Amino acid sequence: MHEDTIAAIATPVGEGGIGIVRISGPQAKDIGKELFRFHRPVQNPQSHKLYYGHVIGEGGEVLDEALLAFMHSPRTYTTEDVVEINCHGGIMPLKKTLERTLQLGARLAEAGEFTQRAFLNGRIDLAQAEAVIQIIRARTETAMQLSVAQLQGRLSQKVGEIRQQLLSVLAHMEASIDFPEHQDVEDVAFVQLREAAELAHKEIDLLLQTADKGRILREGLRTAIVGRPNVGKSSLLNALLKEQRAIVTDIPGTTRDVLEESVNLGGIALTMVDTAGIRETTDTVEKMGVERSREALGQADLVLYVLDASDDLTAEDIELLQAAGEKPLIVIVNKTDLVSSPADVTTKLHSELASVPVVPMSVVENRGLQELEEAIVSLVFQGDVKPSQSAMVTSARHKDALSRSLTFLQDMLSALESGFAIDLLAIDLHSALDALGEITGETVGADLADEIFSAFCIGK
Amino acid sequence: MHEDTIAAIATPVGEGGIGIVRISGPQAKDIGKELFRFHRPVQNPQSHKLYYGHVIGEGGEVLDEALLAFMHSPRTYTTEDVVEINCHGGIMPLKKTLERTLQLGARLAEAGEFTQRAFLNGRIDLAQAEAVIQIIRARTETAMQLSVAQLQGRLSQKVGEIRQQLLSVLAHMEASIDFPEHQDVEDVAFVQLREAAELAHKEIDLLLQTADKGRILREGLRTAIVGRPNVGKSSLLNALLKEQRAIVTDIPGTTRDVLEESVNLGGIALTMVDTAGIRETTDTVEKMGVERSREALGQADLVLYVLDASDDLTAEDIELLQAAGEKPLIVIVNKTDLVSSPADVTTKLHSELASVPVVPMSVVENRGLQELEEAIVSLVFQGDVKPSQSAMVTSARHKDALSRSLTFLQDMLSALESGFAIDLLAIDLHSALDALGEITGETVGADLADEIFSAFCIGK
Repeated sequence: MHEDTIAAIATPVGEGGIGIVRISGPQAKDIGKELFRFHRPVQNPQSHKLYYGHVIGEGGEVLDEALLAFMHSPRTYTTEDVVEINCHGGIMPLKKTLERTLQLGARLAEAGEFTQRAFLNGRIDLAQAEAVIQIIRARTETAMQLSVAQLQGRLSQKVGEIRQQLLSVLAHMEASIDFPEHQDVEDVAFVQLREAAELAHKEIDLLLQTADKGRILREGLRTAIVGRPNVGKSSLLNALLKEQRAIVTDIPGTTRDVLEESVNLGGIALTMVDTAGIRETTDTVEKMGVERSREALGQADLVLYVLDASDDLTAEDIELLQAAGEKPLIVIVNKTDLVSSPADVTTKLHSELASVPVVPMSVVENRGLQELEEAIVSLVFQGDVKPSQSAMVTSARHKDALSRSLTFLQDMLSALESGFAIDLLAIDLHSALDALGEITGETVGADLADEIFSAFCIGK
Repeated sequence: MHEDTIAAIATPVGEGGIGIVRISGPQAKDIGKELFRFHRPVQNPQSHKLYYGHVIGEGGEVLDEALLAFMHSPRTYTTEDVVEINCHGGIMPLKKTLERTLQLGARLAEAGEFTQRAFLNGRIDLAQAEAVIQIIRARTETAMQLSVAQLQGRLSQKVGEIRQQLLSVLAHMEASIDFPEHQDVEDVAFVQLREAAELAHKEIDLLLQTADKGRILREGLRTAIVGRPNVGKSSLLNALLKEQRAIVTDIPGTTRDVLEESVNLGGIALTMVDTAGIRETTDTVEKMGVERSREALGQADLVLYVLDASDDLTAEDIELLQAAGEKPLIVIVNKTDLVSSPADVTTKLHSELASVPVVPMSVVENRGLQELEEAIVSLVFQGDVKPSQSAMVTSARHKDALSRSLTFLQDMLSALESGFAIDLLAIDLHSALDALGEITGETVGADLADEIFSAFCIGK
């Protein structure tokens, strides 16, 4: 448990009916009692009960009307004593209430510090803690489902099982290292070790197979819209944004900038790479042209290459299309409204790139979005966008840890084949276990944990 | 009480640790029970207690982890049954939870509808309801203090007292109208009427005297920064914004655009008129010049006229300065770093406009902001920026209602002097009472109430 008490605004900043200031730590209760005047006097406030009253300033003046809840350790978000004050949801009431908590001895919480305390105090593991910020930042329903499953421990449980199996083998191995006179122990250990390592190898491999899809489902497809000037890239982006605005306008107050860089097409998030590039004036695009497009391509999971149906395929097109290289590529033949049939450009295109999927569209007439969605589902998800019901890997950090674990297991299995001594094998197994432990946080260094939580928002 | 149940996201939309979905109405409890799975089964949930559990979708899937509180009528925000669900503060968890409430029979609340219900159900009056949104939108501490006082009923109480005095006189008058045979009743009524009307007149007048300062303290000084191109208007605005950013950067996540149009200078909000004009390229300004400046001047409470200390006073300056006319005007002689002394331009200026306050500044060297603040306090507030401890009028609507009430009282007093019949006097008194009643909402039409609440945010 920590000795200092932290406080922060826990709700998004902006204009709303309610805003919450959260306090956590040993002084939370005292600070809460000091800054709050109950509407009806209360001797011993119950845990988790919302009391009506007023936040009171240093001079006894009323700062705001509020509901306040004391939450007694350990059944709280951080497992420490927590106080939550529901004020009016504007900048001033929250600022004044927060300042009052600081005046009374709290210190401003750092980004992610509440969740970090929940992790350090053992309420949740690291993968669950990471799920919290993923839920908050989810841009599609699927992304949220995956993150909620992770918060509930689906991945942690799977990783825990694999780790448990390997740990029990490690115990046998260490017994055989400590008592080398028992040759039979060592024999048993070798057999168990191979079996357990092969099983773990298989299970980690299965998890890793979910990683690419998992990342895309959670983070979105990094999508580059590429093409020569004036083919309609910017209109395509606007059409996609409009499509999704129709989906989200039932959320009052959703701001444009939250959505801008991510487009929801039929439940798939397309995270736009270099929207600035798309929006640039014709002038600049012509100047930066191929170079900039190549950069955008480099970061993309999916390339949408836009052609003008009324125009010819140029050498620049062919150069850019070839630069798209190995990336999943869909060619959009736009402005089909301008020609009787887009056959010409498609035929020429197929003589250059045989099997590339082509979607005819007319962005101005709003035709082809459905077909584009189908092409993406078929190309990237092989027709199946649903997340699997079993554990999925959704973060690059977890994928990396699993890959390293797999490599150590492979090394160990080779060493086993080559007849290496059991204490050398144990080193590999330790490393494999450590890599797995990074996912749930058992074996993670303070630096890495700090880095992970600093990417959170303040107040979480 | 209303028969339908409303729901909305009650926290600002964005990224935060916590977000709240609020439900109010007869079905609130049932909807809350249906969408929530308690972590430990609860038979009869207590009122105002936060329970830990999960928001459950139509198919039984977990949508989010949450704390939920049932709040039983009548001790709630709306006085109806209210349920508040504290989810994770991201768009998706809030959207999914809100959608689930709608699926279960709630309808999306309109802007201000929760507060409107609190008003219609008699928990707060109209002036108090208006204070809620003023607290949320307050940009300075003083603005918040004034609004909190209004929410606590300081203005309502004062208006209520005046109304009560007049109402009891009206009762006497009506007795004397109903029983005209009692001349003595009528005589008493006349004497009382004059006394009461004169007292009410005096008190309304005192309230009205607070209105200009009250509005400025709450809404800010509408400030126009005017001057010829290249004198440093845009730099001045940026310097003011930077000054205030230093004040507010302790509020994590405060976004630039919330602050942009309002600058906090030593606790005084300067609401910038036509910032676009200030920021325009030299080109456009030169084109629109005087015309646009005149428009900005028209809306301003305060004009900051910027001159270049190294430059001469031109005919255009003199024209614009004269256009500022009767408005409180402060001349800023900027770029004092470029000259040994700004005496030249100041002398010429004073030959044109004798008593105008002049503040020498060097925006690039960050000199003169303190002096500007002092000049504003002295010019606009006659040195006293503190709000008064008694009731203050802070809204144009209230000022208008008080003015009309005052006029009716004056009319009645004149009619009384002229010896008009008591039933004619009663008509004026009725009108005066109706005007007063508009402030607290007793006599306000449904249309006006709708208009007032529609300016609220959704979820309040």
